[in-house]
Amino acid sequence: MPGLLLLLPLLSLGGASCCCASPGASAVLHPAAARSAPKPRQPPYAAPAYQTRYVTQKIDHFGFDEDGTFQQRYLVADQHWKKDNGATLFYTGNEGDITWFCNNTGFMWDVAEEFNAMLVFAEHRYYGESLPFGNKSYTAKNLNYLTSEQALADFAILIQYLKTTFPEAQNAPVIAIGGSYGGMLAAWFRMKYPHVVAGALAASAPIWQFENLVPCGTFYSIVTNDYKKSGQGCSESILSSWKAIERLSSTAEGLHWLSSALHLCSMLKTREDVLMLKSWLGETWVNLAMANYPYEADFLQPLPAWPIQVACKYLKNPKQPDKSLLQNIFQAVNVYYNHSGHASCLNISQTATGNLGQMGWFYQACTEMVMPMCADGISDMFEPQKWDFHAFSEECFKIWGVRPRPSWILSVYGGKNISSHSNIVFSNGGLDPWSGGGVTKNITDSLIAIMIPEGAHHLDLRSNSPYDPQSVLRARALEAHYMKQWIEEFRHKH
Amino acid sequence: MPGLLLLLPLLSLGGASCCCASPGASAVLHPAAARSAPKPRQPPYAAPAYQTRYVTQKIDHFGFDEDGTFQQRYLVADQHWKKDNGATLFYTGNEGDITWFCNNTGFMWDVAEEFNAMLVFAEHRYYGESLPFGNKSYTAKNLNYLTSEQALADFAILIQYLKTTFPEAQNAPVIAIGGSYGGMLAAWFRMKYPHVVAGALAASAPIWQFENLVPCGTFYSIVTNDYKKSGQGCSESILSSWKAIERLSSTAEGLHWLSSALHLCSMLKTREDVLMLKSWLGETWVNLAMANYPYEADFLQPLPAWPIQVACKYLKNPKQPDKSLLQNIFQAVNVYYNHSGHASCLNISQTATGNLGQMGWFYQACTEMVMPMCADGISDMFEPQKWDFHAFSEECFKIWGVRPRPSWILSVYGGKNISSHSNIVFSNGGLDPWSGGGVTKNITDSLIAIMIPEGAHHLDLRSNSPYDPQSVLRARALEAHYMKQWIEEFRHKH
Repeated sequence: MPGLLLLLPLLSLGGASCCCASPGASAVLHPAAARSAPKPRQPPYAAPAYQTRYVTQKIDHFGFDEDGTFQQRYLVADQHWKKDNGATLFYTGNEGDITWFCNNTGFMWDVAEEFNAMLVFAEHRYYGESLPFGNKSYTAKNLNYLTSEQALADFAILIQYLKTTFPEAQNAPVIAIGGSYGGMLAAWFRMKYPHVVAGALAASAPIWQFENLVPCGTFYSIVTNDYKKSGQGCSESILSSWKAIERLSSTAEGLHWLSSALHLCSMLKTREDVLMLKSWLGETWVNLAMANYPYEADFLQPLPAWPIQVACKYLKNPKQPDKSLLQNIFQAVNVYYNHSGHASCLNISQTATGNLGQMGWFYQACTEMVMPMCADGISDMFEPQKWDFHAFSEECFKIWGVRPRPSWILSVYGGKNISSHSNIVFSNGGLDPWSGGGVTKNITDSLIAIMIPEGAHHLDLRSNSPYDPQSVLRARALEAHYMKQWIEEFRHKH
Repeated sequence: MPGLLLLLPLLSLGGASCCCASPGASAVLHPAAARSAPKPRQPPYAAPAYQTRYVTQKIDHFGFDEDGTFQQRYLVADQHWKKDNGATLFYTGNEGDITWFCNNTGFMWDVAEEFNAMLVFAEHRYYGESLPFGNKSYTAKNLNYLTSEQALADFAILIQYLKTTFPEAQNAPVIAIGGSYGGMLAAWFRMKYPHVVAGALAASAPIWQFENLVPCGTFYSIVTNDYKKSGQGCSESILSSWKAIERLSSTAEGLHWLSSALHLCSMLKTREDVLMLKSWLGETWVNLAMANYPYEADFLQPLPAWPIQVACKYLKNPKQPDKSLLQNIFQAVNVYYNHSGHASCLNISQTATGNLGQMGWFYQACTEMVMPMCADGISDMFEPQKWDFHAFSEECFKIWGVRPRPSWILSVYGGKNISSHSNIVFSNGGLDPWSGGGVTKNITDSLIAIMIPEGAHHLDLRSNSPYDPQSVLRARALEAHYMKQWIEEFRHKH
């Protein structure tokens, strides 16, 4: 599937959040990481205690011919909930297993007591256990109900159901919280269901990464800047690597050498394999940028602190012979894939945690979530690649039998014309490539943008850490401030 | 279909609006009407000049498996449109042929010049010519895409399309206007697509006629009050008539007499026929209440001024022998069905203009638009009838293969919790039975309720008339005032 792979960076909107069940998991540190990392946070970080529950949802909220139902999973933690004046903090689950988000959204656990809050983590349909058609959910036909609109309707129905299950919550405010695609859902949830949620915290939510709302090159250019800032020669080395790979892969010997020097689990043989390798490398650089946190953490992979800096230590000299350059590329990539030191080989068919539902997200990218991306190799360190909607559409049709509708998200959620809405905080990390499609300036006095210059992908949703930069501490405090304001406003109304 | 018929009043949300192509159509006046009517408005009322256009719409906006399209009809009148500072007044078409609404929403034509406005009338999918599957649209399967959400998405797409077709309209404000179900759509359109419309005038829009938001008996009790106010003995006569019909229809001779005394086109034979007769009569009384305008008009039928008063002239004595009573009932019903004097017999299978799509509305009532109704024969003049959701659901399943979801509309549009929205005027007629489910009190300073005590069903959307009560003139002025305010606000933002 070469076409698909060329386009893969599109689909890696990554997961969510953060880190409170990542108790410095790896005992054996990669030497590179050991050099630069602040000490890993110490165990024990008890896995958060929550109950797993299920609610019956209509498979199709927007039509009546399909009247079937499925069980949507959600997690509840009510240790800090005060029935008389508590709030509900509601995580709008994204494209993956909800327990992963639950275990990794430390912010909610950190503020639960302050808000007397019940925490709810709702799993997004078609991910984790919430499969509308069980193990037949991923047929082209059955995927028809995998849309953001259906997911938002699930959330609305679930909250109504919770209010009957916990009658004390009947008149209590609910705040939506999400990161990445989950952050987009949180924002859209407040926009479309303001009667259900009093406000929304949309962390690293690229709601404008659609059509021509932002230049298609922004994303890769932010990634590139992260590398430029993390070590001299770093982005240039990566830029040089693409042609080096091309040169080496032009001979059978070169292919053999590449496979072995990069410790790949399976040998490169065809042109498609080489395209796949480059796509995998590109995605790796992107993922490092998303997970470029100031401390050791396990987001998409277990990583050292400031992993790009660690990787860039190997990438100081862009002007060396191809084989030397690529040996260094291997060292840099190894920071991402082998922080534990346990990996015996690298598998180019996977780049991130298996907790994310890559196939589901691919379908969503092929339908609603059409995020144009491009690179030019000049303002960024990637191989030039135009945004080719036609080719993308053909690929989608071939695989899923659907055609993407690139302007639908703007039609339904308003694009940049969202000033009539209220009570949304959009937070963005300055290091996060997705910040390019995010809301980075206040729109009104209740549509607030918060910038975290030293933050990668929704750093603010992670647990407090001694290594947190001031900017994220300020961001979390401001987020809590607005959340309290929404709660007060809600109480005043009711 | 006796069950269906018992429930028919549910479905008669009537059409829309009013009167500028109803040029005193009937030359031959019914004697009763001639006595009390103000002089009919004089011709010529030129039929409004508009262009008929079509836009391509996705059959399914909310799923990608069905990728087909259809042609949605819309009408455009741009005689008064000023490209530099005009607005678009956009009629959110309801359950019928859009030309009927266009020809009968005089208010928009009356204010077009004042607003330098382009008028657009958008046809609702599955009605008129806008049939997603052509003449196969009304199969149970193909009706799946007949929902309010799909209709709103059509409107949003159409407006975006218009902005590319008329580039001068790109940055011009659009105001949604609708009456009855169209008024509900106008309000919901502003709620869900505030980036598309600057505000909405929702005339006689019973957005709260769902679940238990209002008592199920309100509707019939308002109808009854209209009759109580219109003549002594009137509502009591109607109340007495139900038992009189029961008694007469218990014998073959009585059935024969009834058929002939009421001038029915086909003889009453079975128990079902009698139930159908009563249902038809009930709906007739309801329709008279909806169309109880202060001047001769052609809304659901050509009618004299204050038609209930005219009908009530025949219904002064509730305590007469059954046959006398029913002969008077015939005279009263004749006011509705035979104002022209041309009808040779009365057809109990139809009560209103054929321009309304009764089957489509029935499907909508069987899915989303579940409006509980009941009567008790005490606070109203109707036969006692409980709201029987179960029976209704069975009927829907039998006929369409679908089950109604009575709480969905509340989940998706917020029920009474709509205070986060803005820029909607809800107007209500005090005589209109649908006002019971309408918004009759201000919610915020931009969610405004206007009452028109002397108004029937969206009198305010009709053309100005010398016979208009002061209250409707004030209402129209206030509506124009708010519309101007929304336009200014929009211009200020852009």
